[in-house]
Amino acid sequence: MTPAPQPLAPGATIGILGGGQLGRMLALAAVPLGFHIHIYAPEAESPAGEVAARITRGAYDDAAALTAFAAEVDAVTYEFENVPAACAALLAGLRQVRPGVKALDVAQDRVTEKSAMRAMGLGTAPFAKADDAGEARAAFESLGGGAAIVKTRRMGYDGKGQARVASADDAAAAVARFAAPCILEGLVSFEREISVVAARGIDGRIEAFEPAENTHKDGILHRSVVPAQLKPQVAAEAWRIAGTILEALDYVGVMGVELFLDRDGALLVNEIAPRVHNSGHWTMDACAVSQFEQHIRAVAGWPLKPAVRFADCEMENLIGDDVLRWAGIAAEPNACLHLYGKAEARPGRKMGHVNRLFPPSGRR
Amino acid sequence: MTPAPQPLAPGATIGILGGGQLGRMLALAAVPLGFHIHIYAPEAESPAGEVAARITRGAYDDAAALTAFAAEVDAVTYEFENVPAACAALLAGLRQVRPGVKALDVAQDRVTEKSAMRAMGLGTAPFAKADDAGEARAAFESLGGGAAIVKTRRMGYDGKGQARVASADDAAAAVARFAAPCILEGLVSFEREISVVAARGIDGRIEAFEPAENTHKDGILHRSVVPAQLKPQVAAEAWRIAGTILEALDYVGVMGVELFLDRDGALLVNEIAPRVHNSGHWTMDACAVSQFEQHIRAVAGWPLKPAVRFADCEMENLIGDDVLRWAGIAAEPNACLHLYGKAEARPGRKMGHVNRLFPPSGRR
Repeated sequence: MTPAPQPLAPGATIGILGGGQLGRMLALAAVPLGFHIHIYAPEAESPAGEVAARITRGAYDDAAALTAFAAEVDAVTYEFENVPAACAALLAGLRQVRPGVKALDVAQDRVTEKSAMRAMGLGTAPFAKADDAGEARAAFESLGGGAAIVKTRRMGYDGKGQARVASADDAAAAVARFAAPCILEGLVSFEREISVVAARGIDGRIEAFEPAENTHKDGILHRSVVPAQLKPQVAAEAWRIAGTILEALDYVGVMGVELFLDRDGALLVNEIAPRVHNSGHWTMDACAVSQFEQHIRAVAGWPLKPAVRFADCEMENLIGDDVLRWAGIAAEPNACLHLYGKAEARPGRKMGHVNRLFPPSGRR
Repeated sequence: MTPAPQPLAPGATIGILGGGQLGRMLALAAVPLGFHIHIYAPEAESPAGEVAARITRGAYDDAAALTAFAAEVDAVTYEFENVPAACAALLAGLRQVRPGVKALDVAQDRVTEKSAMRAMGLGTAPFAKADDAGEARAAFESLGGGAAIVKTRRMGYDGKGQARVASADDAAAAVARFAAPCILEGLVSFEREISVVAARGIDGRIEAFEPAENTHKDGILHRSVVPAQLKPQVAAEAWRIAGTILEALDYVGVMGVELFLDRDGALLVNEIAPRVHNSGHWTMDACAVSQFEQHIRAVAGWPLKPAVRFADCEMENLIGDDVLRWAGIAAEPNACLHLYGKAEARPGRKMGHVNRLFPPSGRR
């Protein structure tokens, strides 16, 4: 690990692992700050590659390509949390990688993640590891025998690698089917799902956006709404939780923290994403700084900006054929359209999102 | 000229003539709408090229390169008004070019421009053409013999190709020195300089941003402030003038209209720019839609968005070494930084701008 550098000056190059829409929006935010963007991704064409000054096409286990990439950039960040540990370690030996390896370690494994949250004194759903069918049975019983969810410990996203189970046999069968180490989580009877997207700078300053209220469809985020309808003390608690996690991980950058608000009014950490987050896309049009610029500022060692919101906002993801509604959305006077440049609208594929703005009903 | 097309669908490619910062900011606005950007410019590296999906390096009189460029794009626009007439005509025969050839004709020549404004019933400074030294003497006398400004009819910008003159001899000498057809303009004793950046869509709908008040330094725009301190009837008149010009030219796209407010409270058209305009950069952070997105919408045949402002704003151009102040600006909580990615901070070179936002003191 190189020593903490001076802030990156305009003209520096920020390398981003991953070529998806999050990398694209990071690039669009980095360019006006004077940074050049170098995307590292396995694909020849990618949403982020379209707006990057340079592209390296390479696999995440190609040490030679990663080393050459590191030599051409001044700092490294990533747009997805499943960066292989060896890749992150290699890069971290050559360049400042933000957020760091520690956050990746915690976020990549659901058991490690939940254990870390508990160690921070934060609430989570009840859980037990279920690395094989035998452990799955024991885990089911240990959670009290109620309905539960089996999830692969690694690489799950958008509801993939998840199964609801109602018996020890179900649980064992699900783990056998996934053929991967799993976690069993007790079902939380939650009232709503919210998230806090928060940033921490190299000076330790934290700027958290307001909590958003999220709804899902088919396991994929469908809508995020701000302001969330929360009691002030619940919003404050959500911020406190996000701050606790950022500080415990000595984190630099933007993080998405997904929370369940249970029927007793308690907040449980569902999962963390050590990157910009879909539920923070509303910040692009409703705030004085977007989560993308904020992340780039943190990665560059620049001061964060106040995470102030000046409009109410409903973010709607455009999944698959939803994008065919573009002409109607383009005609909505209060709709801000963000498309990802993907040619093929496959079912379940995130094609873009739209932020609908409304006069502010309340401010932080 | 091809017949008026359907709106461009996301996935289409918009070609932009010119690779400067205006092209760069147009590209950054076009990408989230799903458009691919193809920059045509003589330079190998350019501010706009950095964020474009494709680049053609070519001269503006290279018919073969222009023809190949046209074949690869679905529509054409430009980021500077000095597109050679033959270039515009060639492209207009192959693709929809917006704003059109007519606007370029009017805006490229100061005599044609002022004559057109007069024909629309709009006020201008007194003027006379001075294509050679002899005409310059006659022109000086025809304006009444007071102080005047000699300007080249074509290709002037940022105060280049201008000289203040106090006698017929001065005027003749200036025209001889410029060695180009000139215009002589009577000095207007103006109180302030304002501009209106306005857009017209293919449906004829006009959306004008609020007038900005502009101050110059060394002939280059230094600051634009909104709201301008204007009586409501003056602001309304500025909008009326912009609308008159857009309609008379059957214009599609964004135009910058520079106006003098004289000591009698009358508005005179100084010049028009058939493109996005430096004095409209404040719209990037203070409005629900930027001039850049608005222009792309017009070019694509999409509906315009309401040109609503939600914050007060002071735009400051960062000229030459001004950009060395980036770290201080990055630490200002209300400053939105926009750098153009230019490596060398030469004197007089526009390196970027900063929009400083303030709570809205008044709304349209």
